[in-house]
Amino acid sequence: MTVEVLRVGHRGERDKRISTHVALTARALGADRILFICDDNHVRESVNRIVENWGGDFKFEVIDSWKSYIKRFKENNGVVVHLTMYGENINEAINNIKEDINTGKNILIIIGAEKVPKEAYELADYNISIGNQPHSEVAAIAIFLDRLFEGKTLYRDYKDAKIKVMPSKKEKVVITEKK
Amino acid sequence: MTVEVLRVGHRGERDKRISTHVALTARALGADRILFICDDNHVRESVNRIVENWGGDFKFEVIDSWKSYIKRFKENNGVVVHLTMYGENINEAINNIKEDINTGKNILIIIGAEKVPKEAYELADYNISIGNQPHSEVAAIAIFLDRLFEGKTLYRDYKDAKIKVMPSKKEKVVITEKK
Repeated sequence: MTVEVLRVGHRGERDKRISTHVALTARALGADRILFICDDNHVRESVNRIVENWGGDFKFEVIDSWKSYIKRFKENNGVVVHLTMYGENINEAINNIKEDINTGKNILIIIGAEKVPKEAYELADYNISIGNQPHSEVAAIAIFLDRLFEGKTLYRDYKDAKIKVMPSKKEKVVITEKK
Repeated sequence: MTVEVLRVGHRGERDKRISTHVALTARALGADRILFICDDNHVRESVNRIVENWGGDFKFEVIDSWKSYIKRFKENNGVVVHLTMYGENINEAINNIKEDINTGKNILIIIGAEKVPKEAYELADYNISIGNQPHSEVAAIAIFLDRLFEGKTLYRDYKDAKIKVMPSKKEKVVITEKK
């Protein structure tokens, strides 16, 4: 199974830090790739720097048309989940999504900035809310992936990492690669 | 039980949007109050606007000394959890924290911006990581509160709300107060 995150509605300078948090959260919680509709150097460089130092092969990619991408993804054994505060509660929907995954489907998660075009709702197999209060797309992707993977992705360890953290109750323990 | 979030290391302009996402996520996932060490108009106004429209009595407050605040909180039947990528894995620690809560303790969650002073590690009862990969403090507070409340806070509904969302599988359904 692959997990992709599609960031719709990124507004350049205004969103660069939030979009970077979305991307790094996607990587840390188990996604394989984040897709943007327009390039953004700040986000791309932040992602590449983290992957270079912390390992793995999470990718930042730019696509031309998000609508065509979603349609192709669905045709290609994929399930599409749109995270939105207007959707069905994740508590009710997550088990159905897990069942889809268990049949071998790949997953594409759509996460918008402030406004998301109506087509996203129509194209998605699931419109899922992480509660119906306004909060954050970073929080939404974090909770969704944590629920999907049931905490298992929190133990990921990359062989090619130059920096690793050893969990510790009382201090920072960081292992860096010998030069 | 009350849940407070203490934002340490907020760097004004640079952090205003991330700190706003931390605050709104704290509110949406069940915290009662967010505490800052310095005032920030952008964050304060965003929080107040959301509370005004969406209801409840979540508070943005500014405190003088975070160290004294933590010490007083602990003396006053409180448990202090510091969220950090260097800490013990949440998967292992969450049950101990829930046991503390079940004995009637209040909870203070410390969430830093980029660098957090060493004293935070020493003062905290728990230093908890949401995985040991770099990601986002918004993701950290989101996952921690979701695990703590086991999804129950996702159904919160406020009587004084001027705007409400009705969960829907296929479209936006928003109810606004009649004037």
